[in-house]
Amino acid sequence: MGSILSAAEDEEQEVLIRKELDSYVQPAISSSFPCDNVSEEENNLDSLFLAPSCFVFVPVAIGATLVAYLAPVAAGSGIPVIKCYLNGVKVPEVVRVKTFIVKAVGVVLSVVGGLAVGKEGPMIHCGAVIAAGISQGKSTTFRKDLKIFYRFREDHEKRDFVSAGAAAGVAAAFGAPVGGVLFSLEEGASFWNQTLTWSIFFCSMISAFTLNLVLSAYHNHPGQLSYSGLINFGKFDNISYSFVELPVYVLMGTIGGLFGALFNYLNHKLTVFRLRYLYLKWLQVTEASLVAMMTATVGFTMIYFSWDCQVLGSDPVEYALQFHCEDGKYSALGAIWFQTPEASVKSLFHDPPGSWTLTSLGIFFLFYFLLACWTYGLSVSSGLFIPTLLAGAAWGRIMGICAEWLFNGQDWVCPGKFALIGAASMLGGVVRMTISLTVILIEATGNITFGLPLMIVLMVAKWVGDYFNEGLYDIHVQLSSVPLLAWEPPPLSNNIYASEVMSHPVTTFCTVEKVGRIVETLTSEPHNGFPVVDSDEPASLSTNRTFGRFRGLILRWQLIVLLQHKVFNETAERQWANKKLTLNDFRDAYPRYPPIQRVHISPQEKEFSIDLRPFMNPSTYAVSHTASLPRIFRLFRALGLRHIVVVNDQHEVIGIVTRKDLARYRTWQHRGKMGLEELNIYVG
Amino acid sequence: MGSILSAAEDEEQEVLIRKELDSYVQPAISSSFPCDNVSEEENNLDSLFLAPSCFVFVPVAIGATLVAYLAPVAAGSGIPVIKCYLNGVKVPEVVRVKTFIVKAVGVVLSVVGGLAVGKEGPMIHCGAVIAAGISQGKSTTFRKDLKIFYRFREDHEKRDFVSAGAAAGVAAAFGAPVGGVLFSLEEGASFWNQTLTWSIFFCSMISAFTLNLVLSAYHNHPGQLSYSGLINFGKFDNISYSFVELPVYVLMGTIGGLFGALFNYLNHKLTVFRLRYLYLKWLQVTEASLVAMMTATVGFTMIYFSWDCQVLGSDPVEYALQFHCEDGKYSALGAIWFQTPEASVKSLFHDPPGSWTLTSLGIFFLFYFLLACWTYGLSVSSGLFIPTLLAGAAWGRIMGICAEWLFNGQDWVCPGKFALIGAASMLGGVVRMTISLTVILIEATGNITFGLPLMIVLMVAKWVGDYFNEGLYDIHVQLSSVPLLAWEPPPLSNNIYASEVMSHPVTTFCTVEKVGRIVETLTSEPHNGFPVVDSDEPASLSTNRTFGRFRGLILRWQLIVLLQHKVFNETAERQWANKKLTLNDFRDAYPRYPPIQRVHISPQEKEFSIDLRPFMNPSTYAVSHTASLPRIFRLFRALGLRHIVVVNDQHEVIGIVTRKDLARYRTWQHRGKMGLEELNIYVG
Repeated sequence: MGSILSAAEDEEQEVLIRKELDSYVQPAISSSFPCDNVSEEENNLDSLFLAPSCFVFVPVAIGATLVAYLAPVAAGSGIPVIKCYLNGVKVPEVVRVKTFIVKAVGVVLSVVGGLAVGKEGPMIHCGAVIAAGISQGKSTTFRKDLKIFYRFREDHEKRDFVSAGAAAGVAAAFGAPVGGVLFSLEEGASFWNQTLTWSIFFCSMISAFTLNLVLSAYHNHPGQLSYSGLINFGKFDNISYSFVELPVYVLMGTIGGLFGALFNYLNHKLTVFRLRYLYLKWLQVTEASLVAMMTATVGFTMIYFSWDCQVLGSDPVEYALQFHCEDGKYSALGAIWFQTPEASVKSLFHDPPGSWTLTSLGIFFLFYFLLACWTYGLSVSSGLFIPTLLAGAAWGRIMGICAEWLFNGQDWVCPGKFALIGAASMLGGVVRMTISLTVILIEATGNITFGLPLMIVLMVAKWVGDYFNEGLYDIHVQLSSVPLLAWEPPPLSNNIYASEVMSHPVTTFCTVEKVGRIVETLTSEPHNGFPVVDSDEPASLSTNRTFGRFRGLILRWQLIVLLQHKVFNETAERQWANKKLTLNDFRDAYPRYPPIQRVHISPQEKEFSIDLRPFMNPSTYAVSHTASLPRIFRLFRALGLRHIVVVNDQHEVIGIVTRKDLARYRTWQHRGKMGLEELNIYVG
Repeated sequence: MGSILSAAEDEEQEVLIRKELDSYVQPAISSSFPCDNVSEEENNLDSLFLAPSCFVFVPVAIGATLVAYLAPVAAGSGIPVIKCYLNGVKVPEVVRVKTFIVKAVGVVLSVVGGLAVGKEGPMIHCGAVIAAGISQGKSTTFRKDLKIFYRFREDHEKRDFVSAGAAAGVAAAFGAPVGGVLFSLEEGASFWNQTLTWSIFFCSMISAFTLNLVLSAYHNHPGQLSYSGLINFGKFDNISYSFVELPVYVLMGTIGGLFGALFNYLNHKLTVFRLRYLYLKWLQVTEASLVAMMTATVGFTMIYFSWDCQVLGSDPVEYALQFHCEDGKYSALGAIWFQTPEASVKSLFHDPPGSWTLTSLGIFFLFYFLLACWTYGLSVSSGLFIPTLLAGAAWGRIMGICAEWLFNGQDWVCPGKFALIGAASMLGGVVRMTISLTVILIEATGNITFGLPLMIVLMVAKWVGDYFNEGLYDIHVQLSSVPLLAWEPPPLSNNIYASEVMSHPVTTFCTVEKVGRIVETLTSEPHNGFPVVDSDEPASLSTNRTFGRFRGLILRWQLIVLLQHKVFNETAERQWANKKLTLNDFRDAYPRYPPIQRVHISPQEKEFSIDLRPFMNPSTYAVSHTASLPRIFRLFRALGLRHIVVVNDQHEVIGIVTRKDLARYRTWQHRGKMGLEELNIYVG
């Protein structure tokens, strides 16, 4: 037992998989057991198991440590945080260089450690960080300011860049530039902006092109441009379908939806458990390492107990591992396990019928499903797409083998096609994305005709899954209590009015306000925006004016910059001749403003006044107190607002509606019933 | 001379082109000259020319008559009017059944008449009409009300359906479901609506699928699904590119942009001429018939004087016509002329090098370009895509032949590829669409890798073209004086404020208003929306209140329905117990309300009052008089508004901004200079 056949047959073909295997499976296997064909004794099995365990334990532990101690936001796939960022929520540290490094290094370590993870999600996050960095021309981590791109130093501009970066990430990951654009739109867009969309499209096209160019050059085919995407599904030459198959696809969509819902349910419970008991960093690292060991153990045990041996030579398997099979045969499970997950997905799609037995596929699916579920949410950088696709491809192929028995001799039965449908439906059942996912899969298969079955499968999987719970990304977003706004206003909310939704009483400033009151308010209140009102009575420190006439809105950071530059006067009269503040003063400070505590204001200065009128936004949006929740919701979504002032019939400020106020209302929909509930949102 | 070889060589292959040829070229040729191999005398040339002239004259004259007398809105490609409709402008009769019939019959007649037109644009318009019809469940033309889909009888809902229909049209025309979605988004969307987009996507996927199914069954390959799109560009098996080629593509993009600008310039002048002198219907029919004759004449003359004879048999030409060539040879120009334009495009893309001489391609391009330019804007149903692609493919192929001389022996030089690039750049130079066009072309070629060159070419063509004039669709929209809103607010407009843009004084109604005043106002003023204000002084017939406090907005048709149902009281007090008006009363009337003159109000009733409060929209958007033009613009675009009320600091109505007020500001950009101008918009 334990002898390894390095059955390299066709050196030229599929160099990609080979190279990747060389780089990380080989060290784990061959280096510890240099090709020995001598059958060895049982005691060798320990080392067979232990040595690789070291190889998986070390990288994963390092990766988890990096994530847990340096950049917790780099954990997981990154898609949920990008989603929040594009939705308009400020998640701290999402687009920082530190996060990028931890994410990029972390995902390499996770993959090297043999976890059930993909590298596509992190790719998208990395793309977003790079884009954000480029747009700013400065890095806080490196304390470097290139003094370029001043004009992009605004939340809005930066968000546009992040959209483009995420799209470029998708384009590179799946070779799907159009899918990338649609991903950005689906996750981030509210207002369809022609120019922006075109720029994003160009960006993702260039990204796909560059990856293709580099990969082609790497594989010694420079200029051939045939390596699109980190994962592509290979060429489905003869993939066609007929009407008969559509019911089968609907059935598979249903199964995918069920498995997806189960996956999400288990992962939800697990994440709640983690949030409650595993919040200490060293515990997180320990869990990650444990999972890595477990993954290796399960893999070896599975191979050890499997008797699915296939004859060598008839198969396109690149790295045939003999294990305990007879000479001239290789372990089918070993072949699928000792590949990158990407290569395994491709094998399941394209290997000829009979490459695996039903039992080995069943066992593989069961354990891989559980491992993937356990892995997602660990404190490591890890993508969700590939493990889900792999698990789905496994049961899809099982269905394919069953269909071969049932409809013997029919043209259309082909296990590879069923594997593809299974993979799509499983992925759809877990993430519940629709438009972009369809296009990504169409582009990854490179076949437009097959778009309709994929679409139907994804739709059915989403419907079935939605009956039980939400998509996994949404579950994670919700567990992190981020006030994400959905696409549509919650149903049943037509009779909820602004006056009920708004936060009140609201702290307002007068057009000419005492410095002391501003400092006090900023210190005591966490709000980010303050309405400026006309007030007839003189400003005094203690009155909490709520019913002044609305004149404009000023933001927290604008006030802080004003205070920093001491743009105030001894008297309330207006003499600002020599206190000029340019737009660049504001932009210089972006994106990290000091807290109010760091701004030193002398007691004497506190008696001075600021005229806020030149700095406030005089034409910000305001709604009447009679506006309904859906109407406010649409304004927020369409214009990407963070807050809107509520005025009464006399145009006096009576409240303010923030994202949190809106995100609080949430429709629950459970087994066909539906209702509206108010959630507690904890984010400060 | 004039003998015809019906050289049918390969019966199985390309049945599509054959069938279409059978149906309309054959009648024009073979039926009048049953295959006679005997060389005849010169006098036969008259009949050779005259007989086909009849065959082209009659259908085009019928088509033009239908369009001119029945549905003038069905003229042209239909894309500009759909664009206006989706932009929120009400163009009369765009989505009526009558228009659909004229459009569909008209395009068949135009194509049969041999005009330089395509059927893709009309296809999109037809899709839109069908969608609008389905959504309403009733037809005014047929006086039939199915009493279903009540809830879709709103402008907004109907527009969503039209989006989906247009997308389905694109999907069917080009076999490009994703391109269809993006077309709808590019032309119509303002707010990105997840559910709507997904529905549109599904719709266009089903549309592409159905077309494929029907075409496959028609061609005796049921279930094979290999006929995607009315036009597809055929299989480019070996289409790859290298870095070296990119500059060539940029050059070709430039040329395409120049040709496109020239095309648009000529067509612009022609359209202005037509608007000025050819507004009589019979003149329009005459012009269309003249163009048809001219097209036939030019075609025959070209073939007659061309000596480009190719050897039979070596070529994939389906219908080889001998004309004056020696036996065993066929006329290259005849082959390209006696095909559907779609088939000609495909020939230029795929026929082997040497199928045409430089001279014949050059002559063909010159005349086809001029004919296409003359044809577009005629009073016939005609698409623009195919003629533009064909002209572009011709000069692209010329470039390809030149490149073969220049870079002799290089792998990448292939005339077919150059024809594709030429076609794309020409189309881009004329229509100036970006995102959707790129995706449509990617889907039509079925090759994602080649997306980047296409994108670059389209981008360069657009840039170059935009330097000279606008896209052809925009030119036609502008000439029809429709207040279309662009994507972005005009630059240089930041210092234009609501108070300058708005129309004022504005006619307002009181919350409780005299019936007489409403009737009078509706009769004398054409406006569609009226602000409702609180007013302390008693309502009197003569005062033109402008400065009441803003309470809500009521629309013209709502007022008419109220008057029709006589929802008013003798006194101003509120006693509406027995005057219930349901939403269905409003929906029943949709979409055509009687003019105010048809509503009979007795002099006595004019003294009654209506309480508008239960019917007005109380939470409509209003902007402050200090709001800038770009801010108002964005509100209009993002929320699809038709008018917005301007209020002063006291929340009193001081004006109203309509689409027309915004569309009036237009940036002109001419040879690098830029400015802002106010246009006159004539639409009532």
